[in-house]
Amino acid sequence: MLRYLTAGETHGPRLTAIIEGMPSGIKTDINAINSELAKRQSGYGRGGRMQIEKDAVQITSGVRNSVTLGSPITLEIQNKDWANWEQIMGIEKSNGERRVNCPRPGHADLTGMLKYDHDDIRNVLERASARETAARVAVGALCKQLLSQFNITLLNHVVRIGSVDMSSDYTSPDFADAVEQSPLRCADKQAEQKAIEYIDAAKAAGESCGGVVEVVARGVPAGLGSYVHYDRKLDANIAFSVMSIQAIKGVEFGMGFDVAKNRGSAVHDEIYYANNAYTRKTNKHEQRRRHYSACGNEAYSNAVYTA
Amino acid sequence: MLRYLTAGETHGPRLTAIIEGMPSGIKTDINAINSELAKRQSGYGRGGRMQIEKDAVQITSGVRNSVTLGSPITLEIQNKDWANWEQIMGIEKSNGERRVNCPRPGHADLTGMLKYDHDDIRNVLERASARETAARVAVGALCKQLLSQFNITLLNHVVRIGSVDMSSDYTSPDFADAVEQSPLRCADKQAEQKAIEYIDAAKAAGESCGGVVEVVARGVPAGLGSYVHYDRKLDANIAFSVMSIQAIKGVEFGMGFDVAKNRGSAVHDEIYYANNAYTRKTNKHEQRRRHYSACGNEAYSNAVYTA
Amino acid sequence: MLRYLTAGETHGPRLTAIIEGMPSGIKTDINAINSELAKRQSGYGRGGRMQIEKDAVQITSGVRNSVTLGSPITLEIQNKDWANWEQIMGIEKSNGERRVNCPRPGHADLTGMLKYDHDDIRNVLERASARETAARVAVGALCKQLLSQFNITLLNHVVRIGSVDMSSDYTSPDFADAVEQSPLRCADKQAEQKAIEYIDAAKAAGESCGGVVEVVARGVPAGLGSYVHYDRKLDANIAFSVMSIQAIKGVEFGMGFDVAKNRGSAVHDEIYYANNAYTRKTNKHEQRRRHYSACGNEAYSNAVYTA
Amino acid sequence: MLRYLTAGETHGPRLTAIIEGMPSGIKTDINAINSELAKRQSGYGRGGRMQIEKDAVQITSGVRNSVTLGSPITLEIQNKDWANWEQIMGIEKSNGERRVNCPRPGHADLTGMLKYDHDDIRNVLERASARETAARVAVGALCKQLLSQFNITLLNHVVRIGSVDMSSDYTSPDFADAVEQSPLRCADKQAEQKAIEYIDAAKAAGESCGGVVEVVARGVPAGLGSYVHYDRKLDANIAFSVMSIQAIKGVEFGMGFDVAKNRGSAVHDEIYYANNAYTRKTNKHEQRRRHYSACGNEAYSNAVYTA
Repeated sequence: MLRYLTAGETHGPRLTAIIEGMPSGIKTDINAINSELAKRQSGYGRGGRMQIEKDAVQITSGVRNSVTLGSPITLEIQNKDWANWEQIMGIEKSNGERRVNCPRPGHADLTGMLKYDHDDIRNVLERASARETAARVAVGALCKQLLSQFNITLLNHVVRIGSVDMSSDYTSPDFADAVEQSPLRCADKQAEQKAIEYIDAAKAAGESCGGVVEVVARGVPAGLGSYVHYDRKLDANIAFSVMSIQAIKGVEFGMGFDVAKNRGSAVHDEIYYANNAYTRKTNKHEQRRRHYSACGNEAYSNAVYTA
Repeated sequence: MLRYLTAGETHGPRLTAIIEGMPSGIKTDINAINSELAKRQSGYGRGGRMQIEKDAVQITSGVRNSVTLGSPITLEIQNKDWANWEQIMGIEKSNGERRVNCPRPGHADLTGMLKYDHDDIRNVLERASARETAARVAVGALCKQLLSQFNITLLNHVVRIGSVDMSSDYTSPDFADAVEQSPLRCADKQAEQKAIEYIDAAKAAGESCGGVVEVVARGVPAGLGSYVHYDRKLDANIAFSVMSIQAIKGVEFGMGFDVAKNRGSAVHDEIYYANNAYTRKTNKHEQRRRHYSACGNEAYSNAVYTA
Repeated sequence: MLRYLTAGETHGPRLTAIIEGMPSGIKTDINAINSELAKRQSGYGRGGRMQIEKDAVQITSGVRNSVTLGSPITLEIQNKDWANWEQIMGIEKSNGERRVNCPRPGHADLTGMLKYDHDDIRNVLERASARETAARVAVGALCKQLLSQFNITLLNHVVRIGSVDMSSDYTSPDFADAVEQSPLRCADKQAEQKAIEYIDAAKAAGESCGGVVEVVARGVPAGLGSYVHYDRKLDANIAFSVMSIQAIKGVEFGMGFDVAKNRGSAVHDEIYYANNAYTRKTNKHEQRRRHYSACGNEAYSNAVYTA
Repeated sequence: MLRYLTAGETHGPRLTAIIEGMPSGIKTDINAINSELAKRQSGYGRGGRMQIEKDAVQITSGVRNSVTLGSPITLEIQNKDWANWEQIMGIEKSNGERRVNCPRPGHADLTGMLKYDHDDIRNVLERASARETAARVAVGALCKQLLSQFNITLLNHVVRIGSVDMSSDYTSPDFADAVEQSPLRCADKQAEQKAIEYIDAAKAAGESCGGVVEVVARGVPAGLGSYVHYDRKLDANIAFSVMSIQAIKGVEFGMGFDVAKNRGSAVHDEIYYANNAYTRKTNKHEQRRRHYSACGNEAYSNAVYTA
């Protein structure tokens, strides 16, 4: 069992994650984790906060000589803005400044006030903020180093921004490079241009945008997850993790919702047995394994942009 | 913490579920559970197996005088077909008949063989079968009796079958009745007729259909779930449960994927404060809380219809 | 991960356990489970209830042709007395007879009333009763069939009854046989006689007795459990399970509390390296792996004997 | 649910713990945590390492203005010796010095090498070390601040060192003060002197000592834990936590093993009902709630003293 906890407020000293259950003997690469953190910060149209923080991870346990020890691994990401917030967010003593009184829609503000009995909404938004995902990106980047031992790779790219639908063929050999070079993580150059215009127009109008991201997993062996009990299903566990990300409102696998519009013959891929192996001639069902991400416009309300 | 385990093969003696963590003092109604089991069996176009089993739950622990005791509750649903399968599915001795050799697409057959080292695929499909959901319907029906103590109600209805999109207004006062009286759980009479024709045509062609179901939860208090840690999020936990259901390929909340196509002002509902209470004048964001269900055509392949 | 839930009241229809996570392909032997259940019932001086129930397990899922399928396994043990209690313990309707008003010491009666808001203590004692351990004996007996695949064996025997201390050498070749033939599961014949007299005298005086049982595990490979996180420690997990048994008040490993009375050189076993293997010449530390069991005299109070 | 993870090697940069599930609105006192950390370091006869580290906790999340926020709380304890070990225990690059080749008895060395495939035993002992308990002391000290909201208090004191048995009456009014002032946390002045001599003699002989510690919990309300399922029992959960501490070999509750030597009437405390309340006139059963701690002499072997 591999499990992790994350902690940290957006304007507190740092984000921390502890990962317990990582096998020993796995090569770790801090630069590869930082590279994923940089991708998180580099999206076109991100808020100004992204310039403040240049996230870099520090490992403080569970690794020696760049190899995992089998013991819990601590990941820390400093909040570079902490020096400016030390009086406000002080652990022992706070001056109570930069108080937030008005709950924003599409955020945890209102329920957080009610559930945890906070009267300064800052006590909610400091944790509910999307900055928390930096800790999860670091955890995920480390887990990818475990997966790479089994030649499992993950690639994500953007398939929609607002009204712009991107068409992209992830099976083409230069697909991954095109995604990495795109400021939108989108391999469709024409659609990318339209999406940039869409984002710019929204920004000018004081609006925010939504989008859809697709994750392609390669090299996954048959038999991860299981049918024997509902909570062992792989799709259920992935849906859980994806839906736990701030602002995500939907998730689908393979053809996803389009399966509902089609008959069985258009949806399934027959299994054949030949040369001592099972094989399929089509890949309709698993054609697209995509996760959905939508982010509303907090600026439309009276609140600061935190996501 | 409320948790449960389910067990049972489709042609074994019975399905069993144990629910641990139910509070004491909750009124239980076996008829209400059976009524939910009947709904599960009554869908238009369901396979012939549905006629064999007339599911009825038996409670064998945790309840006395129709009130929960606080101790674990056992729910049993007999498999009425067991008498015909006792030699084949025998716990101690099996004659090995009705062996299944050919893995069906869209099922756990192939991965199950590989993961659990089965050479008779029956050992997989007996558990991977959608019959397992009967146990979960019973568990859910009991949990609804707990939720009703807090005036939380759940209503599900069908919003798509294949190419037929149903329009339905769940806020209308006679909506629930219309759903309960429909053989498709669909309040849109015109669309229902088209969907029935769609199903009949698919059946005639040896195909199966997909669809989308929407669940409307009412009376949910603010503050279930939490933003403080990723695995406490309510949406994540619901997505987990929904996606663990056989054949489900997508799940969305509120506007869901449509959020990605819109700007923030069209997606979020401003929060107002008046008369000592927070309120919203719109309900865009939570307009539709729907869960997606898609079921491919197993009959298109060589297998029996199990879902 | 292997997990299980148990359910069932002492005078309800049956006890049920679901075990989830058992590997597939394990040979199961129902007679071996029943033999463990019989041992549970056969102790010298047990109460009259033991004669009523001749426990036998029924498996209703997860096993076919005496081999595990990898799916959850359901174990049922009928309560033979149910016919006499159906009106009293009725799931849907109870006549409320055989009400218990007076909480017994050394039981869950008082806290159960307060925590679960029961005014009939029967609602507590039906579940708090030691009869629940029958379900756990069945679960454990099945797990021993898994362990036997790895040549791990478990043997328990009694090392104290009241003031009678048994001396016994579990390394002697005929030790296990002597234990199995003893009505007290005690290989020391002289002490056994004294213990029987001790029990008879206590019984005549309306008292109950306590005792200590030792469990000897053989064939356990190095590396079960782990030091990397506190909740992975094997001793902690065993202590948890042992202490969860009704009436148990202490548990110790190896020399246990005697370690506190000795210096390090008397407690530890040096590790040597010879012939390409690590070895120890002594076994002080692991000399005795014992679990402690103490059962107070409920008859001393006004309650029926349930343990 | 309150849960926590700990991380950190003995000679790594720091120990870290994340506590998830702490309610919001709890007053926190860092000095009180540091005071518990100091007690951990102050035991008579502790090894030289204790002088190096003057442990102080730093909170980096989940608390603002000395009040918990409801979000995960991060506790950090710097390893002051890290500057001397940075080359040896380097996260990215290690010079491999201070290698440990010989596994010590009574430690995780041997099983750790085998389980995690380490050839430098340092990779085991850095985590298996008792220094890890500093993180747990900090977690526990914080949890005591939660418990104090309910007027639950915990007091521990030493009841045995080697052959010296301490008699002490924790019900006397000046008991707690006597314990806090004693270098051995022992209120029995005569026995304390004998214990000091016992420790000095053992030290001179190159031996280590064992001992027994008793924990007295006051103000615990009836109904923590539960009889309804084995893994909800309070004693089981406490035994789990206690036995997970390095070097602990036994745990008992109340009279503990002595229960086995007595008849029921000497063990149980009758419950009476008077003045609308349940009461007991005796406290035999819960007379002593003690946890056992034994620490073998690592110095007897070839290893450094780490516990």
